[in-house]
Amino acid sequence: MNEQTLPEAAYPVDVRNRVKRRHDRGAYDHASVHAVLDAGMLAHVSYVIDGQPYCTPTIHWREGTRLYWHGSSASRMLRAQAGGVPVCVTVAMLDGLVMARTGMNHSANYRSVMCFGEAALVEGAEEKSAALLAMIDRYFPGRNATLREFSAQDIKATKVVGMEIAAASAKVRADLNHDEPEDLDNPTWAGVIPVSTVIGAPEPCPHNGPEAIRSGLDAYAPGRRLDEAMVELAHLYEGAAR
Amino acid sequence: MNEQTLPEAAYPVDVRNRVKRRHDRGAYDHASVHAVLDAGMLAHVSYVIDGQPYCTPTIHWREGTRLYWHGSSASRMLRAQAGGVPVCVTVAMLDGLVMARTGMNHSANYRSVMCFGEAALVEGAEEKSAALLAMIDRYFPGRNATLREFSAQDIKATKVVGMEIAAASAKVRADLNHDEPEDLDNPTWAGVIPVSTVIGAPEPCPHNGPEAIRSGLDAYAPGRRLDEAMVELAHLYEGAAR
Repeated sequence: MNEQTLPEAAYPVDVRNRVKRRHDRGAYDHASVHAVLDAGMLAHVSYVIDGQPYCTPTIHWREGTRLYWHGSSASRMLRAQAGGVPVCVTVAMLDGLVMARTGMNHSANYRSVMCFGEAALVEGAEEKSAALLAMIDRYFPGRNATLREFSAQDIKATKVVGMEIAAASAKVRADLNHDEPEDLDNPTWAGVIPVSTVIGAPEPCPHNGPEAIRSGLDAYAPGRRLDEAMVELAHLYEGAAR
Repeated sequence: MNEQTLPEAAYPVDVRNRVKRRHDRGAYDHASVHAVLDAGMLAHVSYVIDGQPYCTPTIHWREGTRLYWHGSSASRMLRAQAGGVPVCVTVAMLDGLVMARTGMNHSANYRSVMCFGEAALVEGAEEKSAALLAMIDRYFPGRNATLREFSAQDIKATKVVGMEIAAASAKVRADLNHDEPEDLDNPTWAGVIPVSTVIGAPEPCPHNGPEAIRSGLDAYAPGRRLDEAMVELAHLYEGAAR
Protein backbone atom coordinates (compact mmCIF):
# COMPACT_ATOMS: atom_id res chain seq x y z
CA MET A 1 0.00 0.00 0.00
CA ASN A 2 1.61 3.24 -1.06
CA GLU A 3 1.16 6.64 0.49
CA GLN A 4 -1.73 7.80 -1.60
CA THR A 5 -3.93 4.89 -0.63
CA LEU A 6 -3.49 5.35 3.11
CA PRO A 7 -6.86 6.46 4.44
CA GLU A 8 -5.32 9.48 6.16
CA ALA A 9 -3.54 10.79 3.03
CA ALA A 10 -5.22 14.04 2.03
CA TYR A 11 -4.81 17.05 -0.22
CA PRO A 12 -3.83 20.28 1.48
CA VAL A 13 -6.62 22.77 1.98
CA ASP A 14 -6.27 26.38 0.89
CA VAL A 15 -8.42 29.23 -0.35
CA ARG A 16 -9.04 27.41 -3.64
CA ASN A 17 -10.51 24.17 -2.41
CA ARG A 18 -11.95 24.79 1.07
CA VAL A 19 -15.58 23.66 0.95
CA LYS A 20 -17.52 26.61 2.34
CA ARG A 21 -21.11 25.74 1.68
CA ARG A 22 -22.32 22.48 3.24
CA HIS A 23 -18.84 21.55 4.42
CA ASP A 24 -20.38 18.39 5.88
CA ARG A 25 -20.54 17.20 2.26
CA GLY A 26 -16.90 18.01 1.54
CA ALA A 27 -13.78 15.85 1.79
CA TYR A 28 -10.11 16.30 1.02
CA ASP A 29 -8.71 12.82 1.55
CA HIS A 30 -7.16 11.04 -1.41
CA ALA A 31 -9.62 8.16 -1.24
CA SER A 32 -12.69 10.42 -1.52
CA VAL A 33 -11.19 12.61 -4.25
CA HIS A 34 -9.86 9.71 -6.30
CA ALA A 35 -13.13 7.79 -6.02
CA VAL A 36 -14.96 10.54 -7.92
CA LEU A 37 -12.13 11.18 -10.40
CA ASP A 38 -12.00 7.47 -11.21
CA ALA A 39 -15.78 7.03 -11.54
CA GLY A 40 -16.03 9.67 -14.26
CA MET A 41 -14.71 9.56 -17.79
CA LEU A 42 -15.48 13.18 -18.65
CA ALA A 43 -13.66 16.07 -16.99
CA HIS A 44 -14.19 19.80 -17.45
CA VAL A 45 -10.94 21.77 -17.58
CA SER A 46 -11.05 25.49 -16.79
CA TYR A 47 -8.30 27.89 -17.75
CA VAL A 48 -7.88 31.59 -18.40
CA ILE A 49 -6.78 33.38 -21.57
CA ASP A 50 -6.54 37.19 -21.32
CA GLY A 51 -8.80 37.26 -18.29
CA GLN A 52 -11.49 35.21 -20.03
CA PRO A 53 -12.38 31.84 -18.45
CA TYR A 54 -12.81 28.81 -20.71
CA CYS A 55 -14.26 25.45 -19.75
CA THR A 56 -13.42 22.58 -22.08
CA PRO A 57 -14.78 19.05 -21.64
CA THR A 58 -12.29 16.25 -22.18
CA ILE A 59 -11.46 12.65 -21.26
CA HIS A 60 -9.05 12.48 -18.30
CA TRP A 61 -6.99 9.82 -16.56
CA ARG A 62 -5.21 9.68 -13.21
CA GLU A 63 -1.89 8.26 -12.05
CA GLY A 64 -1.51 8.56 -8.29
CA THR A 65 -1.92 12.26 -7.56
CA ARG A 66 -1.43 13.37 -11.18
CA LEU A 67 -4.14 14.04 -13.74
CA TYR A 68 -3.68 13.84 -17.49
CA TRP A 69 -5.68 14.84 -20.53
CA HIS A 70 -4.82 15.14 -24.20
CA GLY A 71 -5.87 16.53 -27.52
CA SER A 72 -4.78 17.75 -30.88
CA SER A 73 -1.62 19.80 -31.21
CA ALA A 74 -3.84 22.45 -32.79
CA SER A 75 -6.11 22.68 -29.74
CA ARG A 76 -6.50 26.16 -28.27
CA MET A 77 -6.91 24.65 -24.82
CA LEU A 78 -3.67 22.72 -24.98
CA ARG A 79 -1.70 25.59 -26.47
CA ALA A 80 -2.93 27.80 -23.65
CA GLN A 81 -1.84 25.20 -21.09
CA ALA A 82 1.63 24.64 -22.52
CA GLY A 83 3.58 26.68 -20.03
CA GLY A 84 2.45 25.81 -16.53
CA VAL A 85 -0.78 27.74 -16.08
CA PRO A 86 -3.30 27.49 -13.23
CA VAL A 87 -6.23 25.26 -14.10
CA CYS A 88 -9.21 23.77 -12.34
CA VAL A 89 -10.24 20.27 -13.38
CA THR A 90 -13.75 19.30 -12.33
CA VAL A 91 -15.36 15.86 -12.57
CA ALA A 92 -19.04 15.76 -11.68
CA MET A 93 -21.85 13.26 -11.99
CA LEU A 94 -25.56 13.78 -11.46
CA ASP A 95 -26.96 10.86 -9.44
CA GLY A 96 -30.53 11.90 -8.79
CA LEU A 97 -33.21 14.58 -8.61
CA VAL A 98 -34.30 15.23 -5.05
CA MET A 99 -37.93 16.28 -4.87
CA ALA A 100 -39.12 17.94 -1.69
CA ARG A 101 -42.30 19.68 -0.55
CA THR A 102 -40.97 23.19 -1.13
CA GLY A 103 -38.96 24.57 -4.02
CA MET A 104 -36.31 25.54 -1.50
CA ASN A 105 -35.74 21.97 -0.36
CA HIS A 106 -35.40 20.50 -3.82
CA SER A 107 -31.88 19.35 -4.45
CA ALA A 108 -29.78 16.95 -6.48
CA ASN A 109 -27.71 13.94 -5.60
CA TYR A 110 -24.29 14.23 -7.17
CA ARG A 111 -20.60 13.46 -6.86
CA SER A 112 -18.10 16.15 -7.76
CA VAL A 113 -14.42 16.92 -7.42
CA MET A 114 -12.56 20.16 -8.10
CA CYS A 115 -8.80 19.78 -8.58
CA PHE A 116 -6.39 22.71 -8.70
CA GLY A 117 -2.86 22.80 -9.99
CA GLU A 118 -0.59 23.94 -12.79
CA ALA A 119 -1.01 22.21 -16.11
CA ALA A 120 2.03 21.65 -18.30
CA LEU A 121 2.70 19.78 -21.52
CA VAL A 122 4.29 16.37 -21.37
CA GLU A 123 7.41 16.95 -23.47
CA GLY A 124 9.39 14.43 -25.51
CA ALA A 125 8.14 11.84 -27.98
CA GLU A 126 8.92 8.94 -25.63
CA GLU A 127 7.15 10.51 -22.65
CA LYS A 128 4.12 11.44 -24.79
CA SER A 129 3.96 7.96 -26.25
CA ALA A 130 4.13 6.41 -22.77
CA ALA A 131 1.33 8.67 -21.54
CA LEU A 132 -0.94 7.83 -24.50
CA LEU A 133 -0.30 4.11 -24.04
CA ALA A 134 -1.17 4.57 -20.37
CA MET A 135 -4.47 6.22 -21.30
CA ILE A 136 -5.45 3.23 -23.46
CA ASP A 137 -4.34 0.87 -20.66
CA ARG A 138 -6.44 2.70 -18.11
CA TYR A 139 -9.60 2.52 -20.21
CA PHE A 140 -9.01 -0.68 -22.21
CA PRO A 141 -6.52 -2.95 -20.42
CA GLY A 142 -4.61 -5.16 -22.84
CA ARG A 143 -5.88 -3.35 -25.92
CA ASN A 144 -2.56 -1.69 -26.79
CA ALA A 145 -1.14 -5.06 -27.83
CA THR A 146 -3.92 -5.40 -30.43
CA LEU A 147 -3.50 -1.96 -32.04
CA ARG A 148 -1.22 -0.70 -34.76
CA GLU A 149 1.53 1.16 -32.86
CA PHE A 150 1.68 4.94 -32.66
CA SER A 151 3.59 6.46 -35.55
CA ALA A 152 5.96 9.39 -35.11
CA GLN A 153 3.30 11.49 -36.87
CA ASP A 154 0.60 10.34 -34.43
CA ILE A 155 2.74 11.47 -31.51
CA LYS A 156 3.57 14.77 -33.19
CA ALA A 157 -0.10 15.49 -33.86
CA THR A 158 -1.03 14.97 -30.21
CA LYS A 159 -0.43 17.03 -27.10
CA VAL A 160 -0.62 15.55 -23.62
CA VAL A 161 -1.07 17.72 -20.55
CA GLY A 162 -0.25 16.63 -17.00
CA MET A 163 -1.05 18.25 -13.68
CA GLU A 164 0.02 17.36 -10.17
CA ILE A 165 -3.05 17.86 -7.98
CA ALA A 166 -1.95 20.64 -5.61
CA ALA A 167 -5.32 21.05 -3.91
CA ALA A 168 -8.61 19.23 -4.30
CA SER A 169 -12.00 18.79 -2.73
CA ALA A 170 -14.72 16.22 -3.22
CA LYS A 171 -18.34 17.12 -2.60
CA VAL A 172 -21.01 14.46 -2.55
CA ARG A 173 -24.74 14.39 -1.84
CA ALA A 174 -26.25 10.91 -1.65
CA ASP A 175 -29.34 11.31 0.45
CA LEU A 176 -33.13 11.38 0.61
CA ASN A 177 -35.22 14.53 0.45
CA HIS A 178 -35.33 16.62 3.60
CA ASP A 179 -38.35 18.69 4.47
CA GLU A 180 -39.21 20.92 7.39
CA PRO A 181 -41.50 19.07 9.83
CA GLU A 182 -44.28 21.60 9.17
CA ASP A 183 -44.18 20.80 5.42
CA LEU A 184 -44.63 17.03 5.74
CA ASP A 185 -48.41 17.23 5.41
CA ASN A 186 -48.11 18.76 1.96
CA PRO A 187 -49.70 16.21 -0.41
CA THR A 188 -47.17 16.47 -3.25
CA TRP A 189 -44.97 13.50 -4.23
CA ALA A 190 -41.56 13.71 -2.59
CA GLY A 191 -38.57 11.45 -2.95
CA VAL A 192 -35.61 10.83 -5.20
CA ILE A 193 -35.54 10.09 -8.92
CA PRO A 194 -32.17 8.42 -9.51
CA VAL A 195 -30.26 8.83 -12.76
CA SER A 196 -27.19 6.95 -13.92
CA THR A 197 -25.06 6.64 -17.02
CA VAL A 198 -25.15 3.17 -18.51
CA ILE A 199 -23.35 1.29 -21.26
CA GLY A 200 -25.34 0.41 -24.37
CA ALA A 201 -25.10 -2.42 -26.88
CA PRO A 202 -21.87 -2.20 -28.90
CA GLU A 203 -22.09 -1.10 -32.53
CA PRO A 204 -19.39 -3.05 -34.37
CA CYS A 205 -17.45 -1.59 -37.28
CA PRO A 206 -18.58 -3.28 -40.54
CA HIS A 207 -14.90 -4.02 -41.27
CA ASN A 208 -14.51 -6.22 -38.18
CA GLY A 209 -13.58 -9.81 -38.94
CA PRO A 210 -15.64 -12.68 -37.51
CA GLU A 211 -13.11 -13.17 -34.70
CA ALA A 212 -12.20 -9.58 -33.89
CA ILE A 213 -10.00 -9.42 -30.75
CA ARG A 214 -11.97 -7.95 -27.86
CA SER A 215 -9.09 -7.23 -25.47
CA GLY A 216 -9.90 -4.55 -22.91
CA LEU A 217 -13.65 -4.51 -23.52
CA ASP A 218 -14.81 -6.92 -20.81
CA ALA A 219 -15.74 -4.15 -18.38
CA TYR A 220 -18.15 -2.57 -20.86
CA ALA A 221 -21.04 -4.99 -20.49
CA PRO A 222 -24.26 -3.64 -22.05
CA GLY A 223 -26.63 -2.36 -19.36
CA ARG A 224 -23.87 -1.87 -16.79
CA ARG A 225 -23.33 1.45 -15.04
CA LEU A 226 -20.43 3.32 -16.63
CA ASP A 227 -19.16 4.60 -13.26
CA GLU A 228 -18.83 1.05 -11.95
CA ALA A 229 -16.88 -0.01 -15.03
CA MET A 230 -14.64 3.06 -14.69
CA VAL A 231 -13.83 2.33 -11.04
CA GLU A 232 -13.13 -1.35 -11.74
CA LEU A 233 -10.80 -0.39 -14.60
CA ALA A 234 -9.03 2.23 -12.45
CA HIS A 235 -8.31 -0.41 -9.80
CA LEU A 236 -7.00 -2.83 -12.42
CA TYR A 237 -4.80 -0.09 -13.82
CA GLU A 238 -3.51 0.95 -10.41
CA GLY A 239 -2.79 -2.66 -9.51
CA ALA A 240 -0.92 -3.30 -12.75
CA ALA A 241 1.16 -0.12 -12.40
CA ARG A 242 2.75 -1.22 -9.12
CA MET B 1 -42.28 31.57 -34.02
CA ASN B 2 -39.97 34.09 -32.42
CA GLU B 3 -36.52 35.16 -33.55
CA GLN B 4 -34.51 32.64 -31.62
CA THR B 5 -36.26 29.67 -33.16
CA LEU B 6 -35.69 30.78 -36.76
CA PRO B 7 -33.26 28.28 -38.24
CA GLU B 8 -30.91 31.03 -39.44
CA ALA B 9 -30.65 32.75 -36.02
CA ALA B 10 -27.10 32.30 -34.73
CA TYR B 11 -24.73 33.51 -32.06
CA PRO B 12 -21.98 35.89 -33.17
CA VAL B 13 -18.56 34.33 -33.59
CA ASP B 14 -15.51 35.88 -31.96
CA VAL B 15 -12.15 34.83 -30.53
CA ARG B 16 -13.88 33.10 -27.61
CA ASN B 17 -16.15 30.71 -29.42
CA ARG B 18 -14.69 30.13 -32.89
CA VAL B 19 -14.29 26.35 -33.26
CA LYS B 20 -10.70 25.90 -34.39
CA ARG B 21 -10.11 22.19 -34.20
CA ARG B 22 -12.49 20.08 -36.32
CA HIS B 23 -14.59 23.06 -37.29
CA ASP B 24 -16.73 20.68 -39.31
CA ARG B 25 -18.11 19.56 -35.94
CA GLY B 26 -18.89 23.10 -34.77
CA ALA B 27 -22.08 25.14 -35.04
CA TYR B 28 -23.21 28.56 -33.86
CA ASP B 29 -26.87 28.60 -34.76
CA HIS B 30 -29.39 28.90 -31.96
CA ALA B 31 -31.04 25.59 -32.76
CA SER B 32 -27.78 23.61 -32.44
CA VAL B 33 -26.63 25.44 -29.31
CA HIS B 34 -30.00 25.24 -27.57
CA ALA B 35 -30.44 21.56 -28.43
CA VAL B 36 -27.38 20.68 -26.34
CA LEU B 37 -28.14 23.15 -23.55
CA ASP B 38 -31.66 21.75 -23.26
CA ALA B 39 -30.61 18.08 -23.35
CA GLY B 40 -28.35 18.47 -20.31
CA MET B 41 -29.31 19.13 -16.73
CA LEU B 42 -25.77 19.67 -15.44
CA ALA B 43 -23.69 22.67 -16.51
CA HIS B 44 -20.12 23.53 -15.57
CA VAL B 45 -19.61 27.23 -14.86
CA SER B 46 -16.09 28.66 -15.12
CA TYR B 47 -15.07 31.94 -13.57
CA VAL B 48 -11.91 33.64 -12.36
CA ILE B 49 -11.00 34.88 -8.88
CA ASP B 50 -7.61 36.58 -8.55
CA GLY B 51 -6.36 34.96 -11.76
CA GLN B 52 -7.33 31.48 -10.58
CA PRO B 53 -9.91 29.63 -12.70
CA TYR B 54 -12.73 27.75 -10.96
CA CYS B 55 -15.14 25.29 -12.51
CA THR B 56 -18.32 24.63 -10.53
CA PRO B 57 -20.96 22.11 -11.60
CA THR B 58 -24.56 23.25 -11.23
CA ILE B 59 -28.09 22.78 -12.57
CA HIS B 60 -28.91 25.33 -15.28
CA TRP B 61 -31.97 26.44 -17.18
CA ARG B 62 -32.50 28.49 -20.32
CA GLU B 63 -34.99 31.16 -21.36
CA GLY B 64 -34.52 32.15 -24.98
CA THR B 65 -30.92 33.29 -25.24
CA ARG B 66 -30.43 33.65 -21.46
CA LEU B 67 -29.00 31.06 -19.10
CA TYR B 68 -29.71 30.86 -15.38
CA TRP B 69 -28.27 28.99 -12.44
CA HIS B 70 -28.68 29.36 -8.70
CA GLY B 71 -27.32 28.44 -5.33
CA SER B 72 -26.92 29.44 -1.74
CA SER B 73 -26.34 33.07 -0.83
CA ALA B 74 -23.18 31.82 0.90
CA SER B 75 -21.81 30.25 -2.30
CA ARG B 76 -18.34 31.42 -3.28
CA MET B 77 -19.23 30.97 -6.93
CA LEU B 78 -22.30 33.18 -6.74
CA ARG B 79 -20.59 35.86 -4.67
CA ALA B 80 -17.81 35.96 -7.28
CA GLN B 81 -20.38 36.34 -10.05
CA ALA B 82 -22.38 39.09 -8.38
CA GLY B 83 -21.04 42.01 -10.35
CA GLY B 84 -21.09 41.17 -14.04
CA VAL B 85 -18.01 39.00 -14.53
CA PRO B 86 -16.98 37.01 -17.60
CA VAL B 87 -17.94 33.36 -17.34
CA CYS B 88 -17.98 30.32 -19.56
CA VAL B 89 -20.86 27.91 -19.14
CA THR B 90 -20.27 24.47 -20.65
CA VAL B 91 -22.79 21.67 -21.04
CA ALA B 92 -21.35 18.39 -22.28
CA MET B 93 -22.55 14.82 -22.58
CA LEU B 94 -20.58 11.72 -23.40
CA ASP B 95 -22.51 9.61 -25.94
CA GLY B 96 -20.07 6.84 -26.77
CA LEU B 97 -16.56 5.43 -26.81
CA VAL B 98 -15.19 5.19 -30.32
CA MET B 99 -12.79 2.28 -30.70
CA ALA B 100 -10.49 2.27 -33.71
CA ARG B 101 -7.55 0.17 -34.86
CA THR B 102 -4.91 2.64 -33.69
CA GLY B 103 -4.70 4.58 -30.45
CA MET B 104 -4.63 7.75 -32.55
CA ASN B 105 -8.01 7.09 -34.13
CA HIS B 106 -9.83 6.33 -30.88
CA SER B 107 -12.33 9.04 -30.10
CA ALA B 108 -15.53 9.77 -28.25
CA ASN B 109 -19.02 10.65 -29.35
CA TYR B 110 -20.26 13.65 -27.44
CA ARG B 111 -22.39 16.77 -27.51
CA SER B 112 -21.00 19.95 -25.99
CA VAL B 113 -21.72 23.66 -25.87
CA MET B 114 -19.56 26.49 -24.57
CA CYS B 115 -21.43 29.72 -23.80
CA PHE B 116 -19.71 33.01 -23.03
CA GLY B 117 -21.13 36.09 -21.41
CA GLU B 118 -21.25 38.20 -18.29
CA ALA B 119 -22.97 36.68 -15.29
CA ALA B 120 -24.90 38.94 -12.94
CA LEU B 121 -27.17 38.39 -9.96
CA VAL B 122 -30.89 38.56 -10.43
CA GLU B 123 -31.79 41.34 -7.97
CA GLY B 124 -35.04 41.90 -6.14
CA ALA B 125 -37.16 39.42 -4.19
CA GLU B 126 -39.89 39.38 -6.83
CA GLU B 127 -37.48 38.77 -9.71
CA LYS B 128 -35.65 36.05 -7.78
CA SER B 129 -38.90 34.38 -6.83
CA ALA B 130 -40.06 34.45 -10.47
CA ALA B 131 -36.78 32.92 -11.63
CA LEU B 132 -36.94 30.12 -9.06
CA LEU B 133 -40.55 29.35 -9.97
CA ALA B 134 -39.43 29.25 -13.61
CA MET B 135 -36.71 26.72 -12.78
CA ILE B 136 -39.26 24.39 -11.17
CA ASP B 137 -41.60 24.90 -14.16
CA ARG B 138 -38.86 24.05 -16.61
CA TYR B 139 -37.98 20.78 -14.87
CA PHE B 140 -41.33 19.83 -13.30
CA PRO B 141 -44.22 21.50 -15.14
CA GLY B 142 -47.21 22.07 -12.89
CA ARG B 143 -45.34 21.14 -9.72
CA ASN B 144 -45.21 24.68 -8.30
CA ALA B 145 -48.95 24.55 -7.63
CA THR B 146 -48.40 21.51 -5.38
CA LEU B 147 -45.58 22.97 -3.27
CA ARG B 148 -45.56 25.14 -0.18
CA GLU B 149 -44.79 28.62 -1.52
CA PHE B 150 -41.37 30.22 -1.19
CA SER B 151 -41.01 32.14 2.07
CA ALA B 152 -39.20 35.47 2.29
CA GLN B 153 -36.41 33.60 4.07
CA ASP B 154 -36.16 31.03 1.22
CA ILE B 155 -35.69 33.85 -1.28
CA LYS B 156 -33.15 35.59 0.93
CA ALA B 157 -31.11 32.42 1.33
CA THR B 158 -30.89 31.90 -2.44
CA LYS B 159 -28.97 33.68 -5.14
CA VAL B 160 -29.91 33.45 -8.81
CA VAL B 161 -27.47 34.30 -11.57
CA GLY B 162 -28.45 35.13 -15.14
CA MET B 163 -26.36 35.49 -18.26
CA GLU B 164 -27.26 36.63 -21.74
CA ILE B 165 -25.39 34.33 -24.12
CA ALA B 166 -23.07 36.73 -25.96
CA ALA B 167 -21.19 34.05 -27.89
CA ALA B 168 -21.59 30.29 -28.06
CA SER B 169 -20.53 27.25 -30.01
CA ALA B 170 -21.83 23.72 -30.13
CA LYS B 171 -19.52 20.85 -30.98
CA VAL B 172 -20.90 17.40 -31.65
CA ARG B 173 -19.42 14.08 -32.71
CA ALA B 174 -21.99 11.39 -33.53
CA ASP B 175 -20.21 9.01 -35.84
CA LEU B 176 -18.63 5.60 -36.35
CA ASN B 177 -14.94 4.87 -35.92
CA HIS B 178 -12.69 6.00 -38.74
CA ASP B 179 -9.51 4.13 -39.59
CA GLU B 180 -6.86 4.60 -42.24
CA PRO B 181 -7.42 2.15 -45.13
CA GLU B 182 -4.08 0.47 -44.38
CA ASP B 183 -5.20 -0.26 -40.78
CA LEU B 184 -8.45 -2.05 -41.68
CA ASP B 185 -6.79 -5.49 -41.68
CA ASN B 186 -5.84 -5.13 -38.02
CA PRO B 187 -7.78 -7.88 -36.22
CA THR B 188 -8.82 -5.85 -33.13
CA TRP B 189 -12.47 -5.11 -32.37
CA ALA B 190 -13.48 -1.68 -33.64
CA GLY B 191 -16.76 0.14 -33.32
CA VAL B 192 -18.72 2.30 -30.93
CA ILE B 193 -19.78 1.56 -27.36
CA PRO B 194 -22.69 3.92 -26.72
CA VAL B 195 -23.37 5.35 -23.27
CA SER B 196 -26.42 7.28 -22.10
CA THR B 197 -27.83 8.68 -18.89
CA VAL B 198 -31.11 7.04 -17.93
CA ILE B 199 -33.78 7.60 -15.32
CA GLY B 200 -34.12 4.99 -12.56
CA ALA B 201 -37.03 3.78 -10.46
CA PRO B 202 -38.29 6.54 -8.14
CA GLU B 203 -37.53 6.23 -4.41
CA PRO B 204 -40.56 7.70 -2.64
CA CYS B 205 -40.26 9.61 0.63
CA PRO B 206 -41.67 7.46 3.48
CA HIS B 207 -43.86 10.44 4.46
CA ASN B 208 -45.73 10.41 1.13
CA GLY B 209 -49.43 9.77 1.48
CA PRO B 210 -51.13 7.02 -0.55
CA GLU B 211 -52.30 9.54 -3.15
CA ALA B 212 -49.31 11.86 -3.37
CA ILE B 213 -49.72 14.37 -6.20
CA ARG B 214 -47.33 13.54 -9.05
CA SER B 215 -47.58 16.79 -11.03
CA GLY B 216 -44.58 17.44 -13.22
CA LEU B 217 -43.13 13.93 -12.99
CA ASP B 218 -44.63 12.35 -16.12
CA ALA B 219 -41.50 12.89 -18.21
CA TYR B 220 -39.34 10.94 -15.76
CA ALA B 221 -40.38 7.43 -16.75
CA PRO B 222 -38.02 4.79 -15.34
CA GLY B 223 -35.66 3.50 -18.01
CA ARG B 224 -36.07 6.56 -20.22
CA ARG B 225 -33.07 8.56 -21.41
CA LEU B 226 -32.67 11.70 -19.31
CA ASP B 227 -31.66 13.83 -22.33
CA GLU B 228 -34.92 12.96 -24.09
CA ALA B 229 -36.94 13.91 -21.02
CA MET B 230 -34.99 17.16 -20.70
CA VAL B 231 -35.63 18.15 -24.34
CA GLU B 232 -39.33 17.29 -24.09
CA LEU B 233 -39.64 19.39 -20.92
CA ALA B 234 -37.74 22.30 -22.51
CA HIS B 235 -40.18 22.34 -25.42
CA LEU B 236 -43.16 22.24 -23.05
CA TYR B 237 -41.65 25.11 -21.08
CA GLU B 238 -40.88 27.16 -24.17
CA GLY B 239 -44.38 26.57 -25.49
CA ALA B 240 -46.00 27.60 -22.21
CA ALA B 241 -43.89 30.77 -21.96
CA ARG B 242 -45.16 32.24 -25.23
